[in-house]
Amino acid sequence: MSRTAAIIGAGVIGAGWAARFLLNGWNVRVFDPDPETEARVLSVLTAARLALPGLGDVALPPEGELSFPGLISETVRGADWVQESVPERIELKQKIYQALQASMEEKAILASSTSGFTPSELQAGSPRAGQILVAHPFNPVYLLPLVEVVASDRTTAEDVTRATEILTAIGMSPLKVRAEVPAHIADRLLEAVWREALWLVKDGVATTGEIDDAIRMGFGLRWAQMGLFETYRIVGGEGGMAYFLHQFGPALQWPWSKLTDVPEMDDDLVNRIAEQSDAQTGAQSIAEMEAQRDRNLVGILRALGYTGNGAGAVQLAADARNLATSGVPARFEEIDPAAPVRTIHRAVPLDWIDYNGHMTEARYLHVFGDATDRMMILVGCDRDYVAEGQSFFTVETHIRHIDEVRAGARLTVETRVLEGQGKKMHLWHELYSGDRLLATAEHMLLHVDLESRRSSPLTPLLAERLAILAKGHAALPRPVGLARAVGDRP
Amino acid sequence: MSRTAAIIGAGVIGAGWAARFLLNGWNVRVFDPDPETEARVLSVLTAARLALPGLGDVALPPEGELSFPGLISETVRGADWVQESVPERIELKQKIYQALQASMEEKAILASSTSGFTPSELQAGSPRAGQILVAHPFNPVYLLPLVEVVASDRTTAEDVTRATEILTAIGMSPLKVRAEVPAHIADRLLEAVWREALWLVKDGVATTGEIDDAIRMGFGLRWAQMGLFETYRIVGGEGGMAYFLHQFGPALQWPWSKLTDVPEMDDDLVNRIAEQSDAQTGAQSIAEMEAQRDRNLVGILRALGYTGNGAGAVQLAADARNLATSGVPARFEEIDPAAPVRTIHRAVPLDWIDYNGHMTEARYLHVFGDATDRMMILVGCDRDYVAEGQSFFTVETHIRHIDEVRAGARLTVETRVLEGQGKKMHLWHELYSGDRLLATAEHMLLHVDLESRRSSPLTPLLAERLAILAKGHAALPRPVGLARAVGDRP
Repeated sequence: MSRTAAIIGAGVIGAGWAARFLLNGWNVRVFDPDPETEARVLSVLTAARLALPGLGDVALPPEGELSFPGLISETVRGADWVQESVPERIELKQKIYQALQASMEEKAILASSTSGFTPSELQAGSPRAGQILVAHPFNPVYLLPLVEVVASDRTTAEDVTRATEILTAIGMSPLKVRAEVPAHIADRLLEAVWREALWLVKDGVATTGEIDDAIRMGFGLRWAQMGLFETYRIVGGEGGMAYFLHQFGPALQWPWSKLTDVPEMDDDLVNRIAEQSDAQTGAQSIAEMEAQRDRNLVGILRALGYTGNGAGAVQLAADARNLATSGVPARFEEIDPAAPVRTIHRAVPLDWIDYNGHMTEARYLHVFGDATDRMMILVGCDRDYVAEGQSFFTVETHIRHIDEVRAGARLTVETRVLEGQGKKMHLWHELYSGDRLLATAEHMLLHVDLESRRSSPLTPLLAERLAILAKGHAALPRPVGLARAVGDRP
Repeated sequence: MSRTAAIIGAGVIGAGWAARFLLNGWNVRVFDPDPETEARVLSVLTAARLALPGLGDVALPPEGELSFPGLISETVRGADWVQESVPERIELKQKIYQALQASMEEKAILASSTSGFTPSELQAGSPRAGQILVAHPFNPVYLLPLVEVVASDRTTAEDVTRATEILTAIGMSPLKVRAEVPAHIADRLLEAVWREALWLVKDGVATTGEIDDAIRMGFGLRWAQMGLFETYRIVGGEGGMAYFLHQFGPALQWPWSKLTDVPEMDDDLVNRIAEQSDAQTGAQSIAEMEAQRDRNLVGILRALGYTGNGAGAVQLAADARNLATSGVPARFEEIDPAAPVRTIHRAVPLDWIDYNGHMTEARYLHVFGDATDRMMILVGCDRDYVAEGQSFFTVETHIRHIDEVRAGARLTVETRVLEGQGKKMHLWHELYSGDRLLATAEHMLLHVDLESRRSSPLTPLLAERLAILAKGHAALPRPVGLARAVGDRP
């Protein structure tokens, strides 16, 4: 069953919709009179193809077909969904709806990406007003799940249900808005922050960069996983939301901000919030919520550590400082070649734990891969060396999983160079938690030219350093498990 | 060099400070008259020990010593840092500072966790006012990097620098606030959102749960990695922030929210914002910012997919739907035992790419581990089975890395059962992208009792199903690379 979406207006929002529908298996037709449209949509699609299909652990259905019919009538004819994302001018939108509705199916949904207008405003003057609703997405549309769905009393419940089902089927999280208000829900919250931020800049209290840091180093991280009320419920502790409101209520009367039109925190409002919060998360204890929050935050912070952005940059700087006390050499000259080299000293992150309650198997190779990276850096294959066009690729790995380990435990890896000449680096890693041997790993790596992606001889510095280590480590007792194949008898 | 922090007031904030200092190698003394203090601090410390040390890829220094001296004088004597986190009553804070300053070092920093008061208010009446400053953290203090540092003109520049250095050394991101205003920066933004959210609840536009979803499924995800202005700069495109402001400015005059005290968007304010934004991120093109944003968002969304919370729950539901078109069997009855079983069909996530520009080695085992999990589920070792106390642990792995793969590419894994009897499951996986063989993996797993953590015989259903597959797969040609040890000649 192949379905078709018509995208009317293809700025960054319309192009994002096109990518999301297409990558979720829909055929997509795009109309925008701008001559740059096709290039822009293809550019957004290139970014979306890198990002969206890998979001989950299961492949998306095969991509649909993309076309640019050039006429509104051809674009919308027979389409199941028409998404309008033209500039925020009500007369423009209403005029375009006349053209769309002249050619589109009576059964199709006509959804507007408007961030400000209500469905009733959009529907005014339309002969088939009930067909029009708001489906307001967030940039980048191909990644963020939120879409606010707003209907008027002229929209049928069936159409709202159908719209919600379609949006869910393309991986989104539709939020049905209960009332028609300008700017729906999320943009009202954003507008409030925006105004306060403008005052802070205007009054010279903070720069744009400082305000951004105040968000992304703090509450922005919390809001990626729990919202405002869940976060405050945790602050209230086992006393719940009503307790929090009684603590926090008085601050509302203080002139903290310029935006001082404040609802009265009477019993009615306190009870309403407390009841809604109980319905939302009352089944969970505060301790459970805290544990969940910490797992989410660790995962988010570690993801940012991998990209090195925002709070991730703070963590990378902390890691660089902590290296000094970790016992891991920072430079080749610090190595004693008569002993295995400590290449890792770290703790098991909370997000490395699986359904068996211990560090999951792939993270053993993650640690060993990091140990290999450290050895590469120590012998001279560092980021600069890689940037100049050569690196090592692992071609073969053997791991013995000997013991389990839990979140928070400290890990060390001791590494030996078995061989390092020609094009090869042959390594032996032993993973410990304290004195407890958790695993061993044997790796064969090839030195490669990153241009040709083929193996190439070690450069003299690498060969010299690897030879020093291989010679020193050859004098150590033979590692237990070396050259073993899966299932060999001990 | 062992340093000491004194924690005065040990609610959730004070206890969070205690954990952060302690796990970063400081000795910590805690004072709070509440008899539950020690239990509460130890509880927070247990959570922090699971979460904080694993945030980075390098071990923290050894933990400091924790004590509860029972007297304020003993708590603060000789301490390098005194952190006050008592309730938000100015008279209470000022009174406690008298007691603290009677015993603490003249050179030590006395920092308040206050979210609302200014340093000048805190300093009023103190004989050593310059010693007092604001260091306002965010819950959970042991995980979130943001700390707002606010000084008055009575604080020396040296003290501010020293405070900032100490906070950086314990892994935080100090934000020096330029001016003394009530609630500093972040809480003014939070206050604005809070008031708007209260109006939405009071007016019946949204429930607490709907507001939380409007945050965490959309802009909350963006704000975990870029803030307000960087996000809007991207919306403005190559036209930059001034272009965005001209587009967005008019909406400020619309009555979207109850909070309508709006600064005039005159040239002065537009230019100030545009200049600050250029200074903040002007060196990056919009395309670079978008690519960075997408890498961050994919990492964050995948981290939430692993925990299954917030937007992660949306992705898990999408994965469950997409399984139907993936060619991966959902149940044992769908398997043809005469052929290898497709156990994975997915795309390479953007956050699996390393400095060599391809899928990093540990993710090969990640995919193979997921393939093993799917085979386990198919033969009957699903989440319910694990919850009842039995599972499989991998004891040995051999991987041949044959070819590279890039972000967005589709992957499949074809799996054979080599043996499945007694306590063993012996698997063979082949990883493909299209027809291209990327890697093979041979795994030996043992069936284990999760109570004793020791191997145990397969249950009859598992043994029966594994025997059916082993028999079918034995008729296939022998896999190339089976039983190979690292470095064997082909």
